[in-house]
Amino acid sequence: MPEEEKVLETLRAEVLEANLELVRRGLVVSTFGNASAVSREHGLCVIKPSGVPYDRMTPADMVITDLHGKIVEGTLRPSSDLATHVALYRAFPSIGGVVHTHSRHATAWAQAQREIPCFGTTHADYFHGPIPLTPSLTRDEIEGEYEANTGTAIIRRMEGLDPLACPACLVAGHAPFCWGKTVTDAAHMAVIVEEIAAMAWQTITINPHASAIAEPLRDKHHFRKHGPTAYYGQK
Amino acid sequence: MPEEEKVLETLRAEVLEANLELVRRGLVVSTFGNASAVSREHGLCVIKPSGVPYDRMTPADMVITDLHGKIVEGTLRPSSDLATHVALYRAFPSIGGVVHTHSRHATAWAQAQREIPCFGTTHADYFHGPIPLTPSLTRDEIEGEYEANTGTAIIRRMEGLDPLACPACLVAGHAPFCWGKTVTDAAHMAVIVEEIAAMAWQTITINPHASAIAEPLRDKHHFRKHGPTAYYGQK
Amino acid sequence: MPEEEKVLETLRAEVLEANLELVRRGLVVSTFGNASAVSREHGLCVIKPSGVPYDRMTPADMVITDLHGKIVEGTLRPSSDLATHVALYRAFPSIGGVVHTHSRHATAWAQAQREIPCFGTTHADYFHGPIPLTPSLTRDEIEGEYEANTGTAIIRRMEGLDPLACPACLVAGHAPFCWGKTVTDAAHMAVIVEEIAAMAWQTITINPHASAIAEPLRDKHHFRKHGPTAYYGQK
Amino acid sequence: MPEEEKVLETLRAEVLEANLELVRRGLVVSTFGNASAVSREHGLCVIKPSGVPYDRMTPADMVITDLHGKIVEGTLRPSSDLATHVALYRAFPSIGGVVHTHSRHATAWAQAQREIPCFGTTHADYFHGPIPLTPSLTRDEIEGEYEANTGTAIIRRMEGLDPLACPACLVAGHAPFCWGKTVTDAAHMAVIVEEIAAMAWQTITINPHASAIAEPLRDKHHFRKHGPTAYYGQK
Repeated sequence: MPEEEKVLETLRAEVLEANLELVRRGLVVSTFGNASAVSREHGLCVIKPSGVPYDRMTPADMVITDLHGKIVEGTLRPSSDLATHVALYRAFPSIGGVVHTHSRHATAWAQAQREIPCFGTTHADYFHGPIPLTPSLTRDEIEGEYEANTGTAIIRRMEGLDPLACPACLVAGHAPFCWGKTVTDAAHMAVIVEEIAAMAWQTITINPHASAIAEPLRDKHHFRKHGPTAYYGQK
Repeated sequence: MPEEEKVLETLRAEVLEANLELVRRGLVVSTFGNASAVSREHGLCVIKPSGVPYDRMTPADMVITDLHGKIVEGTLRPSSDLATHVALYRAFPSIGGVVHTHSRHATAWAQAQREIPCFGTTHADYFHGPIPLTPSLTRDEIEGEYEANTGTAIIRRMEGLDPLACPACLVAGHAPFCWGKTVTDAAHMAVIVEEIAAMAWQTITINPHASAIAEPLRDKHHFRKHGPTAYYGQK
Repeated sequence: MPEEEKVLETLRAEVLEANLELVRRGLVVSTFGNASAVSREHGLCVIKPSGVPYDRMTPADMVITDLHGKIVEGTLRPSSDLATHVALYRAFPSIGGVVHTHSRHATAWAQAQREIPCFGTTHADYFHGPIPLTPSLTRDEIEGEYEANTGTAIIRRMEGLDPLACPACLVAGHAPFCWGKTVTDAAHMAVIVEEIAAMAWQTITINPHASAIAEPLRDKHHFRKHGPTAYYGQK
Repeated sequence: MPEEEKVLETLRAEVLEANLELVRRGLVVSTFGNASAVSREHGLCVIKPSGVPYDRMTPADMVITDLHGKIVEGTLRPSSDLATHVALYRAFPSIGGVVHTHSRHATAWAQAQREIPCFGTTHADYFHGPIPLTPSLTRDEIEGEYEANTGTAIIRRMEGLDPLACPACLVAGHAPFCWGKTVTDAAHMAVIVEEIAAMAWQTITINPHASAIAEPLRDKHHFRKHGPTAYYGQK
């Protein structure tokens, strides 16, 4: 088997597994949600097909496209959000997987059109700052290449931020997009973002004047887990 | 087996399965909730019996009535909400199934006597506008043919709306009624409405001034999934 | 086996089963909560032992007392709330079972020191009015016969109400007590009260000015299920 | 086997089991959370390793340290919160186990920077007063020996309180630490604290002016379960 086929075979299995993990974790109702992975060396994206029931999906159903969304392999239509995924892969070279869900708590923040403040160390363990929110898309952006423009809105909002120190963004009136070094990491991040969103919701209903933690505490927790000074976990 | 019997046998199984799906999805406590299907060609409605425990229900327990609620077959009493179901079938020729639940989140909106604004794309994927709310029934409507008048209140509130682009309505102080092309679709819609209601609740507790998404975004998402320009899912 | 022994054997099994049902339904954390039944003809109460883990409890562990709480049979200490249970049995001749839980939503209303308004038909199906709340007990009532005085506070609050049309009461700063014709009914009522409390909580967070449904709607739903004009369920 | 080894073997199993109980109870997402036990006679602490997936952990993975956090046995890195655990063991001679989680409801209170008032008897059954909250750590405390200083902040906040009558403390902007006579008790307390936090959240959203229960009721419930006058449970 040529090397490209081996890589794709692995990614197909990982992408399917990430999609199923979203279901098992309760982040997905119906066929909402989609996960993809990228092979940087082959310039290929592996993504879930659109609107296929999860319990019937096999690795062979995954769709392979290039990084502009052109289908290279697969008989099913790719997720309708494909253009957002490939825009993120082109803009963020450090990421290897993207996950989009309509998970309840994170979506509520996107609908409330509020970024999620860094209220505590659980949040700081993963994000070096708030979980950002895009502005609303304009009529032209919506009526034009909507999914690609959604990607553009995220990329613009992320300007100046390291995608691995801020591995998710809320799209206003829509829902979160999450990412990571691999699609497995991206799916894990979708779980974490949902938990952070739930805690933040309760935090502001307990104390409407709650404020973000101070920078030293945010930095301490973030860099305890990330970067050269990290000391969390095993070496 | 005559053709009518075959159709009814299928519908009995589908109606039972839809009722059980409501239980599995956690939308039903005790014996709240009921699902029905219609055979348009035979002018017959197949509905759950009233107050029978779900774990003992068989397809043969389903009650068959005409579209005015007259029992045609079955030894058990039909759901006490039968008159609402048949009123909806008579008024909305495009629907094939009706589901009524007291699911927690949707019922809370009905009790709060608020329609559910279209706060995001999850909502717009299914509804082309808010989830509507009937006015409160008058004393005369309540003390008269209550269940039929509940149907009338829904039908009046739905005036000018396409039932398949607005597949649910909240009854003030009561709970949601949902529908679809089939009873399976109607049960699925009950799940979706509950999820939308939960997200909307959290949205307004995060931001009491949250507003509905702009029309272009609502239209984009709705028509991505519905109508001649749809491109979501497989062909 | 003498007739009294047969009755007690049945009640022991029913009381154990009711206690286990509370656990299965998620109404009980740790060893909170207790259920009891009464044999009116023998003047005996069958109640859960105090602080015994649910997974090791057998019917033989149930404690038998007279209606003044004097132990007649059993080697374990009865539930510490026994005196409340027997006070309710003495005051309400129509009831056959009592259940006390600290279920999350109902307890939150008791802690908020608010009765639960009849916000909708789900509530009216079971209660002909709000779920009442006792006043706070006085220091003397607390430092005296606390559990008996808890019973007295409930009984006083229920004056003029039919216990079967108002099958639960919240104790201020404490939690709900529920009852019914049998201990099985009482445990079922604890499930219903928890669901009503959850919906009511969400209702007032959606609309802080939400008000109780009009009396005709409350009466319609209540008497659709209860009393001589009931037409819900099977005959 | 020497006596010390026997004790450590038992504690390793108990610490692992406590960590797994946190997962089963839904208090832990990802690898958040850690539990430890102490052997007072040997001056040793047994603690979970850092960032190891729960489903692969064995008793042999537990790390043994002295009460100043020096590793005595084990090849894995200990939980990064080790210094907090041993600080608590040194300060509170009556405790035998410590559990730290980021459980959703308790963490929301820590993030809201509010102590949890004693709103009801469920709370009073375990705590003789509010669940306390540390002040925010200063920049120096965070940038210095952060985990040890977290312990110091808790110990300072607990001054004048009996650790077994107040078996948990919230760390501002962070999450709860819980403890008990054994690690099993500490894990149980983490479950209870989460439930109390959930009820308290709902209590103040139902009634923003809710107040703590009166002292006689608090004392009655607390001393019904604790101390020489206790009469809850079996002898």
